[in-house]
Amino acid sequence: MSRTQLKAVLSEDKLPENYYNIQHDLPEPLPPPLDPGTLKPMAPEPLLRLFAKECVMQEVSTEEYIPIPEEVREAYLRLGRPTPLQRATRLEARLGTPAKIFYKREDLNPAGSHKPNTAIAQAYYHRKEGTERLATETGAGQWGTALALATAFFDIDLTVYMTRSSYNQKPYRRTLMEVYGAEVYSSPSPRTNAGRKFLEKDPDHPGSLGIAISEAVEDCVTHDNTKYALGSVLNHVLTHQSVIGQEAKLQMEEFDAEPDYIVGCIGGGSNYAGLAYPFMRDKLRGKSEAEFVASEPRAVPSTTRGSYRYDFADAGETTPLIKMHTVGHSYQCPPIHAGGLRYHGKAPSMCMLIDKGFMRSVAYSQNEVMDAGLLFAQTEGVVPAPESNHAVKAAIDIALECKRKNQPKTILFNLSGHGLLDLKAYEDKLADRLVDYEPAAADLDRALQALPVVG
Amino acid sequence: MSRTQLKAVLSEDKLPENYYNIQHDLPEPLPPPLDPGTLKPMAPEPLLRLFAKECVMQEVSTEEYIPIPEEVREAYLRLGRPTPLQRATRLEARLGTPAKIFYKREDLNPAGSHKPNTAIAQAYYHRKEGTERLATETGAGQWGTALALATAFFDIDLTVYMTRSSYNQKPYRRTLMEVYGAEVYSSPSPRTNAGRKFLEKDPDHPGSLGIAISEAVEDCVTHDNTKYALGSVLNHVLTHQSVIGQEAKLQMEEFDAEPDYIVGCIGGGSNYAGLAYPFMRDKLRGKSEAEFVASEPRAVPSTTRGSYRYDFADAGETTPLIKMHTVGHSYQCPPIHAGGLRYHGKAPSMCMLIDKGFMRSVAYSQNEVMDAGLLFAQTEGVVPAPESNHAVKAAIDIALECKRKNQPKTILFNLSGHGLLDLKAYEDKLADRLVDYEPAAADLDRALQALPVVG
Repeated sequence: MSRTQLKAVLSEDKLPENYYNIQHDLPEPLPPPLDPGTLKPMAPEPLLRLFAKECVMQEVSTEEYIPIPEEVREAYLRLGRPTPLQRATRLEARLGTPAKIFYKREDLNPAGSHKPNTAIAQAYYHRKEGTERLATETGAGQWGTALALATAFFDIDLTVYMTRSSYNQKPYRRTLMEVYGAEVYSSPSPRTNAGRKFLEKDPDHPGSLGIAISEAVEDCVTHDNTKYALGSVLNHVLTHQSVIGQEAKLQMEEFDAEPDYIVGCIGGGSNYAGLAYPFMRDKLRGKSEAEFVASEPRAVPSTTRGSYRYDFADAGETTPLIKMHTVGHSYQCPPIHAGGLRYHGKAPSMCMLIDKGFMRSVAYSQNEVMDAGLLFAQTEGVVPAPESNHAVKAAIDIALECKRKNQPKTILFNLSGHGLLDLKAYEDKLADRLVDYEPAAADLDRALQALPVVG
Repeated sequence: MSRTQLKAVLSEDKLPENYYNIQHDLPEPLPPPLDPGTLKPMAPEPLLRLFAKECVMQEVSTEEYIPIPEEVREAYLRLGRPTPLQRATRLEARLGTPAKIFYKREDLNPAGSHKPNTAIAQAYYHRKEGTERLATETGAGQWGTALALATAFFDIDLTVYMTRSSYNQKPYRRTLMEVYGAEVYSSPSPRTNAGRKFLEKDPDHPGSLGIAISEAVEDCVTHDNTKYALGSVLNHVLTHQSVIGQEAKLQMEEFDAEPDYIVGCIGGGSNYAGLAYPFMRDKLRGKSEAEFVASEPRAVPSTTRGSYRYDFADAGETTPLIKMHTVGHSYQCPPIHAGGLRYHGKAPSMCMLIDKGFMRSVAYSQNEVMDAGLLFAQTEGVVPAPESNHAVKAAIDIALECKRKNQPKTILFNLSGHGLLDLKAYEDKLADRLVDYEPAAADLDRALQALPVVG
């Protein structure tokens, strides 16, 4: 064909056979998680009460590759992996940039985001280890949807604690989880001590991801044969997402191109790590000079205005502490539409890479990112999730910089999810009703000063 | 791989180069459209005021193949064609059937249904012929969404008249059209004589597809450089959809299988024709004994309880009359969730094939089809549109019949769209709130008796 190549589609036999584990290539070992009581390094054993054994082993593994079980690969195939990688020629033309823009389609599965990549794996490991019921939390609902789909596939019961603001604002995410057979509660809920504590303070508490985590963990440890699953932040979760970047590497080769910039949005960090780490591997080995750009909301500026230090993963202070960029677990994340980015911390491996200068991060307001989303929808046709629009915006900014400098660079970003269940965000944008949030320095200081001091 | 093959994915170069036109193979020419004033056969010329010239020529063409313009093929590629064809092994196992069930994924484009196949073509022809603005109608919103996407691609202004019940019940479909840049009005609207007429009778009129057609046609003929586009029923629309079945034929060969049953849902008939006609071609030539099963709602039983005769295409009696199975253009379609199937008539070519026994049709209640949709979602992961669930239900019934008779037959159906913007239907189903509608014989008789008698 003489036309410009628009997409690269891999055949089934190109589906990755292994997960790539960044811990093999990090410049130094990750700081250990700390016990929330003693603030001393904790062994992995207590995590076995929560997570699948296989996931706990992956959490501390430094093996480069971890085989993907055949049942997981079959489910990936059924749900649309390998996913296409496309070139945004209409967006390029509209911007008038000499840059080439590529995007990986993680929106094209029934759950509508990258989350099934780890949900399928976690559900499979749990099924294999005999777990009959799982508890989890969800913010905007992408993770809960993905795990509901995965537990339907592997015949496990699922209870989801969904932050109340999303539970009320996004009833159809809840319906989607129920379609897959999950039971969904508004969080804070009266079902747990953690939930009751926050409800006592404020019966109309809007909830937060940190609170919902506390509830799901408590549900897990207080019920028989119930385990817990987390959708981001942890090493094993990011490892499962590496299928994205492994496929993308093959696909960029099909385009006969190499990315100069690798871009993604970060909430906990898993979708961006999924795309970026198989490329970062080359950079850590001195074989690539690609730039890595992580995009976060100005309203929750963990890596751009937070601190790199130990913090709890949850609001209830029940989980181990991990070293990460954080705005503090007591920080009140503003109600931006990109609910998946409303998390105080970020993945430890990513934070180390940012801290050591292998990655940089940028922050945008929600009006900026929704403008970018509208432009993307009108040129490329796909309506991205508000979360993903942070990546779209960062890619557009780089492309415009390439235009100013007349540099024909290659940009690759992760389209981590579609916006079909987030059209309220677009409706608000079109009606000029979107509010931008930017925390005052004093608020950030207060949340950070509340953190425990680790010796 | 030793696993059962789950899907067939075609490479870009397998995207069809021609549309297949069933008129080349019909057992006899289609009865001509009639002038609404004289009730005499009308020439195609007056249609040029409404439609793209190329579409009018295709409407009466008996050429077997019509080349697909390169610009249209490029847009198809960008939007995900060729689409995958998958095997529903998890559904088969759950049913315990020896039958193999295959489904074509027409849900995997940004508009979420098969409608872009013709929207892209029509928008391209209009752009080529200099049209600057289009007017159209939409019921549930799939067609309006697809045309909004297509007109964004080809830089044409678009005004959509959306039936009021959907406009209010499905605000996010409206938002999606607006994201793509379309202007959307609730129908009946005060913008047209047709709309005002119905509003005078009832200021809270819920609207209907027939009324919205009247409004869009009136908008077209009363504005300069404005044309009209229709999303189903007409020959050229069905012809554009033939890309579905052409791809499916190649994909069934990849599975080394031939369908014994070819199944789809019918509203106007275009998605089912798109899948079925390239296979029907073989049957009309005596080379296939496949059974063709069209599935419609019991609430709008055009082919199962209607009459095969001339009727208006719209409620306002402004369009030409066409010979089709109809429940009468004054029939009040009940407010089922499958809004895309709320149309009194069906495509003339399909009605001829049903009338002559080449196809048969079945009808289902909305509770039956939503149960089928839940089963499909929980086994295969994909949440189908309520319209598509009519096809899912028919396929399941055939598979269960195969189980009773122990026949390892092969069933192929069209998954014409996803249900992510129809989750209210699932919510109502899960809450046991869905009402089934079945018109009384007297109501059907009344609507049919109101039709003009054609000599």
